[in-house]
Amino acid sequence: MSSSDSKPMFSTLVVAGLGLIGGSVAAAAKARGVAERVIGFGRSAARMQGAVDAGLVDEVVDAVVRLPAADLVVVATPVDRIADDVRRIAEVMPDSCLLTDGGSVKEAICRSLREAPPQKGMFVGAHPLAGSERSGWEHADANLFEDKLAVVTPDERTTDDALMTVEGFWKRLGMRVVRMSAADHDRVLALTSHLPHLTAAALAAQLPEDLQKYAARGFRDTTRVAAGDADLWTAIVRLNAVPIADRIDELVSTLANYSTSIRGGDFERVRELLFEGQQSRTRLNEN
Amino acid sequence: MSSSDSKPMFSTLVVAGLGLIGGSVAAAAKARGVAERVIGFGRSAARMQGAVDAGLVDEVVDAVVRLPAADLVVVATPVDRIADDVRRIAEVMPDSCLLTDGGSVKEAICRSLREAPPQKGMFVGAHPLAGSERSGWEHADANLFEDKLAVVTPDERTTDDALMTVEGFWKRLGMRVVRMSAADHDRVLALTSHLPHLTAAALAAQLPEDLQKYAARGFRDTTRVAAGDADLWTAIVRLNAVPIADRIDELVSTLANYSTSIRGGDFERVRELLFEGQQSRTRLNEN
Repeated sequence: MSSSDSKPMFSTLVVAGLGLIGGSVAAAAKARGVAERVIGFGRSAARMQGAVDAGLVDEVVDAVVRLPAADLVVVATPVDRIADDVRRIAEVMPDSCLLTDGGSVKEAICRSLREAPPQKGMFVGAHPLAGSERSGWEHADANLFEDKLAVVTPDERTTDDALMTVEGFWKRLGMRVVRMSAADHDRVLALTSHLPHLTAAALAAQLPEDLQKYAARGFRDTTRVAAGDADLWTAIVRLNAVPIADRIDELVSTLANYSTSIRGGDFERVRELLFEGQQSRTRLNEN
Repeated sequence: MSSSDSKPMFSTLVVAGLGLIGGSVAAAAKARGVAERVIGFGRSAARMQGAVDAGLVDEVVDAVVRLPAADLVVVATPVDRIADDVRRIAEVMPDSCLLTDGGSVKEAICRSLREAPPQKGMFVGAHPLAGSERSGWEHADANLFEDKLAVVTPDERTTDDALMTVEGFWKRLGMRVVRMSAADHDRVLALTSHLPHLTAAALAAQLPEDLQKYAARGFRDTTRVAAGDADLWTAIVRLNAVPIADRIDELVSTLANYSTSIRGGDFERVRELLFEGQQSRTRLNEN
């Protein structure tokens, strides 16, 4: 890291929502000296005090009116609250403030903020592709974003300066950055994240308690993400409904194909289907 | 481990099929001093020589007529060859020889061996619930079975002595042993192993090469097992066809339920489905 890389980019960074993602953003920003001070903002000061004690943030604030002026605000609240939180927080910020987010859906958030833009500041949507089935800043990890991909979703109103700064921020957390339209992001994530989550949940729900002890590593890995919070995921599904339903229907069609081939004794077809999955998954191992 | 635990149980142990499971059985048996000598049996001596060099087995044999008399033979060949291999190997063994297997389906194998029993020795079906998406003795691991479950499937012809010895063998590899009928085993494994495999393969097949870079940890874990060998898995599916097809149909029905609820805007129903999966998967984490 050159000396210019380690200079703070910002005087004040606010992270709104100290869950797993927000907590990790704060921890990574602190660890990498991205801002002179990092402020955590959320609804419960009592619950957040631990994040100060753990060194994730310098200070916590539980009311928007008490927020100090910031150069960058990262909104990492649940996806169905992000657009409102961006507007609410922007009101108390300087005109030059930038806002970004960590939401795993983008089109609904960006559309809401295009239709009713924040009165101050400028918003550039983002989604760091990193996470875990765990929630809460207690599981925050300063290295969560290291070498992962951040998708940034500028639109026609995004200025070059704002885009460069927000992209620079995610890079400073260790991420590689990719630009995409919000709609493209949502179609891709429906497949790579939202569909596997619902599939894992559907599989997990099929396991009765008395058969748990027969669930070995294969079942455990395949269903791991299903332990994620049902409310958070319901909000994600609601905000990316059609792309997700389309992907589910494709999966249902492949699975129905398996079932029909198996019942019809067409194991050559089963082999073809399995081989397709094997090839695709092996390619992924190589990347 | 008491001194009686470390005494060899057998003079000669034969492991037929030095794949991941056979190689790991041999390695674990050697490491734990289960037999005075461990012989690997397979079709290609050249390929197996490396297993001798790696210390997994004492010796390899590539023709059934050259097999030495053994006290126990573990048949760990592909599931659709196990019954034939058991009969073939038993012919050259002493009457007192015991045979067990490592196949992930049991009813078809046990039925075949009930209908056409080996001319010598006695067979007790088994399935160590441990494995990996990798194949070959090169990935063998002497600790693969440590603290895992082995299902043993005796039937009405199994003598108590044979059952105790075979169960004792799997325990000596570090496993906990559970008895079950072969048919019950297959119904349970259809859910806990075979269904997740097909689901992972179906999901993996849905990922086009240009979207690979967006597949983060959730997608990777959920599809990991799909990298397993398509031929091996086709044989498993063929030998456990109806229980597997039944489980697929249940999953299809749950996924169709998600899709219908999402398209109909019934996100309360989506939340219920997700919550069911979350509860079940969280319970599993606690075990």
